[in-house]
Amino acid sequence: MMRDQLIDDLVNRLRKFADEREWGQFHSPKNLAMALTVEAAELLQEFQWLTEEQSRQPDQEGLKRIKEEIGDVMIYLILLSDHLSIDPMAAAFEKIEKNRAKYPVDKAKGSAKKYTDL
Amino acid sequence: MMRDQLIDDLVNRLRKFADEREWGQFHSPKNLAMALTVEAAELLQEFQWLTEEQSRQPDQEGLKRIKEEIGDVMIYLILLSDHLSIDPMAAAFEKIEKNRAKYPVDKAKGSAKKYTDL
Amino acid sequence: MMRDQLIDDLVNRLRKFADEREWGQFHSPKNLAMALTVEAAELLQEFQWLTEEQSRQPDQEGLKRIKEEIGDVMIYLILLSDHLSIDPMAAAFEKIEKNRAKYPVDKAKGSAKKYTDL
Amino acid sequence: MMRDQLIDDLVNRLRKFADEREWGQFHSPKNLAMALTVEAAELLQEFQWLTEEQSRQPDQEGLKRIKEEIGDVMIYLILLSDHLSIDPMAAAFEKIEKNRAKYPVDKAKGSAKKYTDL
Repeated sequence: MMRDQLIDDLVNRLRKFADEREWGQFHSPKNLAMALTVEAAELLQEFQWLTEEQSRQPDQEGLKRIKEEIGDVMIYLILLSDHLSIDPMAAAFEKIEKNRAKYPVDKAKGSAKKYTDL
Repeated sequence: MMRDQLIDDLVNRLRKFADEREWGQFHSPKNLAMALTVEAAELLQEFQWLTEEQSRQPDQEGLKRIKEEIGDVMIYLILLSDHLSIDPMAAAFEKIEKNRAKYPVDKAKGSAKKYTDL
Repeated sequence: MMRDQLIDDLVNRLRKFADEREWGQFHSPKNLAMALTVEAAELLQEFQWLTEEQSRQPDQEGLKRIKEEIGDVMIYLILLSDHLSIDPMAAAFEKIEKNRAKYPVDKAKGSAKKYTDL
Repeated sequence: MMRDQLIDDLVNRLRKFADEREWGQFHSPKNLAMALTVEAAELLQEFQWLTEEQSRQPDQEGLKRIKEEIGDVMIYLILLSDHLSIDPMAAAFEKIEKNRAKYPVDKAKGSAKKYTDL
């Protein structure tokens, strides 16, 4: 039900890309999770000295780099999910439902508190 | 062209979820990039003491937690992209093409070297 | 009691370095924690495609880069601690004592399990 | 010259702690770098929904958790350095000197730009 054409295309292209280069040997879930975190931190780096306000309006150059880093994070997230036969979109939808129970509107409204402190 | 029904659904559900809770005030790109990195590291934590081999076959409990963390990473990646009007799937496809030029098959085959060292 | 000459020297040098460049405005604990994580991930990147065995014997070039990244992590850890008036060495010693209670030798020996699963 | 009594004490205590639990097998530099990043992100998490201003004045509970996370980061930084025979304090001092050349006062004053953009 969740299977999605565009994500399937991405998975297939990433598999082919890795196979052609014989990179499967490096792509253990452990290593892919490391690469994912490294890319997330490179994305974070784009924002580290900006104010929150500035981060809402990055300049053209910044936005281009941010887009590339978002691409990298997505690539490793999809690769890692594929290696563990996890559907990342289904995982996201399920997590939202879980969060709905943890953060009921009447308690969570306008608050950044963790659900354990609500 | 890249717009994808399933991702659009996820975006809409995340927007609604945040709006109902008045969380837009906390969701600056800077903060979302922080949350994304925090979630990526929680995913990483699942693998930190496993061997690469073990990471290919997590136990049932581990797999369940990993799926949740993948959901969290996807959620923040989609939220951040939405706030900056970036299409994360297009970003991924474009990055693959860029990597194709950086890592030509004949040079990159079987090597984990960075493109600058090939 | 914990105050340490070498760390005090480092703190003073870092304060002077930031003051001369008027960087105090950027050095909120929030931003420093971001920079610390970014540097930790750059350190992680040095190991991401190495096997555990290879990571025990990085080559000369790798070791040089690793040393620099360790320097960066230490710098931001000390800066962040200084901004919050936390003694990082005392924090480490206290954490060891806490871990001693969480991981008793007879239960934790040879196990990588989290204390909640021991 | 750089050897420091307090850090030597910490190294020795950490070695003993790991030896008693036979944890050396898990402590490859690769794994220690992962643990370091995970702890840095846990520290980051304390600040993710705070404004920069709020991050300068965490409440008592927050400050206690922050101190613990700083302790964890220091522990893994010292352990990783020890496993690679790197002196982390010397690394920090050397990095400051390097930064002095990359960020000359007259160019870097009041600017958060990366040295490549100065």
